[in-house]
Amino acid sequence: MSSVLAVGSVAFDSIKTPFGARSKCLGGSATHFSVAASYLTDVAVVAVVGDDFTAEDEAVFHERDINTSDIQRVKGGKTFFWAGEYGTDLNVAHTLDTQLNVFGDFKPVLSTEARKAPFLFLGNILPTLQREVRSQCDAKFVAMDTMNLWIDTTKDELLKTIAVVDCLTINDAEARQLANEPNLIKAAKSILELGPKILLIKRGEYGAALFTRDNYFATPAFPLENVFDPTGAGDSFAGGFIGYLAQAGTIDNQTMRTAIIYGSIMASFNVEEFSCDRLRRLQPNEIRTRLEEFKALTHFELGDNTESNYKLGKLPAAVQR
Amino acid sequence: MSSVLAVGSVAFDSIKTPFGARSKCLGGSATHFSVAASYLTDVAVVAVVGDDFTAEDEAVFHERDINTSDIQRVKGGKTFFWAGEYGTDLNVAHTLDTQLNVFGDFKPVLSTEARKAPFLFLGNILPTLQREVRSQCDAKFVAMDTMNLWIDTTKDELLKTIAVVDCLTINDAEARQLANEPNLIKAAKSILELGPKILLIKRGEYGAALFTRDNYFATPAFPLENVFDPTGAGDSFAGGFIGYLAQAGTIDNQTMRTAIIYGSIMASFNVEEFSCDRLRRLQPNEIRTRLEEFKALTHFELGDNTESNYKLGKLPAAVQR
Repeated sequence: MSSVLAVGSVAFDSIKTPFGARSKCLGGSATHFSVAASYLTDVAVVAVVGDDFTAEDEAVFHERDINTSDIQRVKGGKTFFWAGEYGTDLNVAHTLDTQLNVFGDFKPVLSTEARKAPFLFLGNILPTLQREVRSQCDAKFVAMDTMNLWIDTTKDELLKTIAVVDCLTINDAEARQLANEPNLIKAAKSILELGPKILLIKRGEYGAALFTRDNYFATPAFPLENVFDPTGAGDSFAGGFIGYLAQAGTIDNQTMRTAIIYGSIMASFNVEEFSCDRLRRLQPNEIRTRLEEFKALTHFELGDNTESNYKLGKLPAAVQR
Repeated sequence: MSSVLAVGSVAFDSIKTPFGARSKCLGGSATHFSVAASYLTDVAVVAVVGDDFTAEDEAVFHERDINTSDIQRVKGGKTFFWAGEYGTDLNVAHTLDTQLNVFGDFKPVLSTEARKAPFLFLGNILPTLQREVRSQCDAKFVAMDTMNLWIDTTKDELLKTIAVVDCLTINDAEARQLANEPNLIKAAKSILELGPKILLIKRGEYGAALFTRDNYFATPAFPLENVFDPTGAGDSFAGGFIGYLAQAGTIDNQTMRTAIIYGSIMASFNVEEFSCDRLRRLQPNEIRTRLEEFKALTHFELGDNTESNYKLGKLPAAVQR
């Protein structure tokens, strides 16, 4: 039995960035998520692929010990395909083509083994499919990702799915859209009213923020001079986050904060190359080094607390409105 | 002699936000900066005002012990006026009207006292004026702010001014524009080549980042549920930053990091009300409380460093590209 079960897309992506182009490389939310999480815990994937999904593609999962026995193969079918382009603003993906292919008729049926996974990640797919998988799984912790497309096209179904998960990951513009509220703190409070106990806001190059009913945490992102391809950043972030939680065994505030740092670091590697190329050849010491660099570059002290050496203590009592 | 000398605008602002409107309230870069810095150190202001600058306006400076003897008064003149509006995206100010008035002919001549200030802040005014003030002052530490307007209209003069300061504060979109480079880390490196030893990037609700030749620091912003009026956020941020450095007496990496947190906290108060209303009635314990809240909400641990309890140590040696 794997600790983490991930459902989502296993796809082929054709991607163009200002730094290069790659056609039909392995991608998809379940792919980026599971490869990232595999550095921290045992992962299994639920997805659907066509005949064009080769042994070479599957090897990417197997070399990371990712269980692929719940990946359905559709004879005569074609794997989900996405083509996209990024301009100089790497935060915005411009979709050029989406071919659902075998994903159009996907009816996930989980194996007995898969149903037992204690952690479940519902990657960014149709909210009804996410809920179908959720209903088949006894997971003690369920996280989901989503996107503006579902807020625009199937918000009622999305809200029903959000109501049955423990944790929602979403980017900040989408959080504001979902809550119809420009202030992120207010938007977060309103989203927590929809059901999840944990809201994890992805802010791209600006980092991430965590909201629970009684706790707030924010962190910048790991600084990267060379972001090559942002595709899968959010999924590898979620992979690091949930992978860390699964290996930790507890889900308290400090553990979630550490998990977010792991997520940030896994995402920072993911975006350095196309597909999962960088994650595939990652070494444990590289993760540890970057974690420690991250700790160092965000560390600060509040300074001397005595009032004598600065004017904080010298405010005249007369200063009132 | 004051520790910090600030040159910039003392102005009247008419501001509309989604939460309210205020006409002809006291504003300007030197105003927001000096009121914020006054909680940490002694400040003097170099600026120019007209007849419409009243004793009541000046009282805002005096109640904070800010030295106003270098504020020129132009008989028959009118004070600099700015009218602006913010929509639901509070990060973007839409300028409705700008009247330079007495600022159009401003020729700063510093008093003997003002020239001796060890810290100088060049608020966001014409780069030639900033350089004129800089040349009259013996400050050991000079910081400047600027904006896209000067990059667009007088970049050569701006570059000459940037070359003679120790620290540049600028928002992140403007940093990318100035360096003509979308990646912020690369843009920062390129800006440091222009002369300043310290680059402080303002990211609004996302926080701030500090670049020196050998150090990087990033922090999120203090989370605010009610941002009422963002006008002056950058200036009060700079006021907290430079005010802290001036009282600390040293400018090493740790001191600068702490100074950025002070800047963030002063900015967080500034934006809670129109003009300097919130800063004027600030109490020292409120600053200390928010500093400690900030420390708490950004704190994280890297977690257990042993390899045995997670898979980092179990990566098969065969995993190579």
